[in-house]
Amino acid sequence: MPDAKRGRRNKSEAARRAKKSVLRIIPLGGLGEIGKNMTALEYAGDMIVIDCGLKFPEEEMLGIDFVIPDVQYLVENKEKIKGIFLTHGHEDHIGALPLVLPRVDSPIYGSPLTLALVEHRLLDVRTPYKPSYNEVKAGDTVKTGCFDVSFIRVSHSIPDSMALFIRTPVGTLLHSGDFKLDMTPAGGAGGTDLASLASFGKEGVTVLLSDSTNSERAGFTISESVVGRTLENVFRQHKDHRIVIAAFASNLYRAAQVFSIAARFNRKVMLVGRSMISYVELARKLGYIDISQELFVTPQEAEKLPPNRTVVMTTGSQGEPFSGLVLMSKGEHKQIRLGDRDTVVVSATPIPGNEKLVSNTINRLFECGCDVIYERDMAIHASGHASREEQKILMSLVKPKYFMPVHGEYRHLVRHSQLASEMGIPANNIFVAGNGDVLELDSSGKLRRGSRVASGSVLVDGVMLGEFEGSLLRERRELSESGVMAVSVVVDGEYRLVSQPQIDSRGSIYGFEEENMRPDIASAVERALDNVRGGSVDRSSVVTEIRKKIREVIGKNYRAYPGIMPLVSVIGAALGPRPAGGKNGQSPKQRAQGKLDRQKSGKVV
Amino acid sequence: MPDAKRGRRNKSEAARRAKKSVLRIIPLGGLGEIGKNMTALEYAGDMIVIDCGLKFPEEEMLGIDFVIPDVQYLVENKEKIKGIFLTHGHEDHIGALPLVLPRVDSPIYGSPLTLALVEHRLLDVRTPYKPSYNEVKAGDTVKTGCFDVSFIRVSHSIPDSMALFIRTPVGTLLHSGDFKLDMTPAGGAGGTDLASLASFGKEGVTVLLSDSTNSERAGFTISESVVGRTLENVFRQHKDHRIVIAAFASNLYRAAQVFSIAARFNRKVMLVGRSMISYVELARKLGYIDISQELFVTPQEAEKLPPNRTVVMTTGSQGEPFSGLVLMSKGEHKQIRLGDRDTVVVSATPIPGNEKLVSNTINRLFECGCDVIYERDMAIHASGHASREEQKILMSLVKPKYFMPVHGEYRHLVRHSQLASEMGIPANNIFVAGNGDVLELDSSGKLRRGSRVASGSVLVDGVMLGEFEGSLLRERRELSESGVMAVSVVVDGEYRLVSQPQIDSRGSIYGFEEENMRPDIASAVERALDNVRGGSVDRSSVVTEIRKKIREVIGKNYRAYPGIMPLVSVIGAALGPRPAGGKNGQSPKQRAQGKLDRQKSGKVV
Repeated sequence: MPDAKRGRRNKSEAARRAKKSVLRIIPLGGLGEIGKNMTALEYAGDMIVIDCGLKFPEEEMLGIDFVIPDVQYLVENKEKIKGIFLTHGHEDHIGALPLVLPRVDSPIYGSPLTLALVEHRLLDVRTPYKPSYNEVKAGDTVKTGCFDVSFIRVSHSIPDSMALFIRTPVGTLLHSGDFKLDMTPAGGAGGTDLASLASFGKEGVTVLLSDSTNSERAGFTISESVVGRTLENVFRQHKDHRIVIAAFASNLYRAAQVFSIAARFNRKVMLVGRSMISYVELARKLGYIDISQELFVTPQEAEKLPPNRTVVMTTGSQGEPFSGLVLMSKGEHKQIRLGDRDTVVVSATPIPGNEKLVSNTINRLFECGCDVIYERDMAIHASGHASREEQKILMSLVKPKYFMPVHGEYRHLVRHSQLASEMGIPANNIFVAGNGDVLELDSSGKLRRGSRVASGSVLVDGVMLGEFEGSLLRERRELSESGVMAVSVVVDGEYRLVSQPQIDSRGSIYGFEEENMRPDIASAVERALDNVRGGSVDRSSVVTEIRKKIREVIGKNYRAYPGIMPLVSVIGAALGPRPAGGKNGQSPKQRAQGKLDRQKSGKVV
Repeated sequence: MPDAKRGRRNKSEAARRAKKSVLRIIPLGGLGEIGKNMTALEYAGDMIVIDCGLKFPEEEMLGIDFVIPDVQYLVENKEKIKGIFLTHGHEDHIGALPLVLPRVDSPIYGSPLTLALVEHRLLDVRTPYKPSYNEVKAGDTVKTGCFDVSFIRVSHSIPDSMALFIRTPVGTLLHSGDFKLDMTPAGGAGGTDLASLASFGKEGVTVLLSDSTNSERAGFTISESVVGRTLENVFRQHKDHRIVIAAFASNLYRAAQVFSIAARFNRKVMLVGRSMISYVELARKLGYIDISQELFVTPQEAEKLPPNRTVVMTTGSQGEPFSGLVLMSKGEHKQIRLGDRDTVVVSATPIPGNEKLVSNTINRLFECGCDVIYERDMAIHASGHASREEQKILMSLVKPKYFMPVHGEYRHLVRHSQLASEMGIPANNIFVAGNGDVLELDSSGKLRRGSRVASGSVLVDGVMLGEFEGSLLRERRELSESGVMAVSVVVDGEYRLVSQPQIDSRGSIYGFEEENMRPDIASAVERALDNVRGGSVDRSSVVTEIRKKIREVIGKNYRAYPGIMPLVSVIGAALGPRPAGGKNGQSPKQRAQGKLDRQKSGKVV
């Protein structure tokens, strides 16, 4: 190779290296949404990932169980990934790991509780993948690639939550994780470590990524210990009742408080709900909560105690269909029958989208005759997220040069950015981004927008772990609104009916109506066949014509508008490819596949 | 007829008459729910009905447009009905009239606005039925049958709302209608007529039926005129922006305030949304609001004005899919493009169940770059319903002997009844009832529970005005979660395949997968036919067997679980009735109809 050429090549390599030596902040989930939190940091050949969460589906995602981030970008760069750093053990931060870990094969870093919960989830889905677990605690610093990640204790609604301070070759980041400032979380756990935050702030924070969930909420989120006092009052005022408390299973502070209050009021605690039992077990095993064994009762033992000597702690605070509280409210729980000697405390706020489920549960609880204490009553629940005054304190402690609101719907990000503005951060230094938007921090310490990477949602439908296209969801929506009718038409090569059309329907027509329709449908099919027969029409228009004629007649005569699926079998001498038993010519399937002609024509076997 | 016998007969008639001379209070809707408000009062041969509303469907009622009360009891007693008395013109009080009126053929009584809205609804559905309209105003008393109905002005979120004071032979009732006490509703309309309430209270109220909607809300509902002041501040602070205000179309006070503030700030108002336009038109025509014509602009005129000289008043405050505000937020509105020179005010609170729709709309508005002012911001909306202190004032004014909370979910009724208890009404005199529960007031002035009447919900699916069974909804739910696959199987009399099975699917399988599945399905069908052939199996089990084999193979090989609809055509010599192309032997259709044997067998035509 001539020197000149080599020189050019060396130069371009250097240029590429120079171009690459920016820190890329790559949010892959959690911006513009509550859930599936995930952010990657990339510098030259190194990458780390913060969190890997799932999201619960929107209402219109019919039949979808959960949603995870599209991690195509990570898979393409998997050899760069040095570690996945977990801020805490909530589903929206760890829930996608069982599906993502095997694809990127990275070590994971987290607190003991967080890692135990990851392990639990992996066991649940029975994946053979065994990750490399790396336990850390607040105060630790992990060096990996060009990154230096320090863990900082923060208060949240699950123990052992952390913020991350990350040193990179071009600047530092502080990622708040999910946090609030609560100085008195229950169980003597210690609140958010303000001193460490201040000291990292002194070192200098180039970019602050901060939790925006409660950026619409003025003031200061109440402390978990205030909830304890409210619960104590409930115990005091309902001395003759059994007390049933529904809370998030992962809120182990809440559980710890319930046990300690129960002990003081000489009651024993029965746990209900698979996740409630396993969270408490795990937290005891790991030493997060210290509960004497004698405080626990089994359902059998509880039955022998007077109601006012027991407390039931259960799942279902979000009105989840098969949870403990919901089954109780319906009178369908195996062990618990509720009545007028029960006081039920719903110790949670409905997550947006769950309002109706929770409200229906509360109505049913009232119908059981219980006293019900719920969100409208003060201080029965504490949010896990910082309100506006706390968000301001964090900014003030770490004095970031740049601000990037994370963890929130778009409205939350905007309100949080307005707050940053009020705190004196210049508008040009505030970046409201979406998933896939890249921010680049260069060696001169300047942050700017870079080119986007692939991002999005992967919809997971039960065990069918795959991507889900909008077209299928649209079809499900249509099915759910109007139902469907299948019509089987058997014709000979001349499009003459060989037998009566068979029909079946779902979700649209009652049996007796279906019977009434048979003659109408038969003659609609005849008319459709008459129209296509003899002409030089395209074969697939047979299906379209049949659908049209059937739709007309049942719309007119029965005012029913199901989706119509004609299935045409041609028997005898086939004149060519059979008409598709599919949708009309514009069917996405046919367009996408173009396989119409490759379909076997219906011939006698 | 012997005298003795005649005597016995007379006696039993008298007994029947005596038995009948109780006033029966019959709630047919609105108890344990928000919506479809309707209560009948029956005394001997006379009956009146209060309100006739619809309800919007629950989420799980897939494809249902609205729900109305089951009025079987009214239809059976239609000759008794002297009148339907309407408290106000909201859908949940008048919306079922187009379907109910033709069946009971009763005169209706209401304020001019209420009747105009009824007429509007009847025109909308193009029913040929012409009701007898009877206009009343506050202060009027209508005598009909044994009832004496007086109308009392109350404040609510639509003009011309009324409470009813009803004299009957055995006592009096006060029905609050939907009310709040607001003494300064906008437009100088005059607030709730406390003096009349007090005077009827002095006469004596045996039973108070009172609006429970806000019985969970402490304090006093803010006045509509406070909202006016908030809006004024918005106009003051956003002088350079176009202002877009979304509100309920029926909240004509809100509209009146917007027009008057616009006039003061030298802006013109463009109305967006069919119902917004027609409500304002109607209210102007009837003289409820007085707006100078020059304040209105058309979209064409508005385009020529600078943004800060216009106000857009639109529907969509509940995030309704095709409403003005939602189309604007999606950039799909024909006339309005939103951007950073717009301030959008969402002047409403989400109705329970609409939270997510509203929240999504607000997120999209932020994404358009607008300033958005919404419910978390104070005093931008006033509820139409009394809070707890107002509910107490009503009880205190009318001093009822008995109390019956109405208009609310069960939790609201319970909380309202607790309030009545705090107000000193004895627990035995408080009746929390459900739809169909009957309360009987006898001539000694004692109220007790009577025997129930038929009540329930009629689900209305678009134009298919009929009752909807749970089975169809269950089918829709299943379709929406897993989709459906239809398989057409053509066999001869010996159950040998005559052509390849045809398949089509919706909402479950992608086209390319469907293609891959064809051979698997064909062989599954062959196996199923092998299993049934020759044996003395029941014909319908052919369908069951085919379904089973297909389900197995596509579950195993593709992890897909759609509902399977096999359609079997038998051609050639039929051995008897063809196997049903329907569901399995347990299909509700087949069970309900038992028409299997009457189905024509598939024979060559």
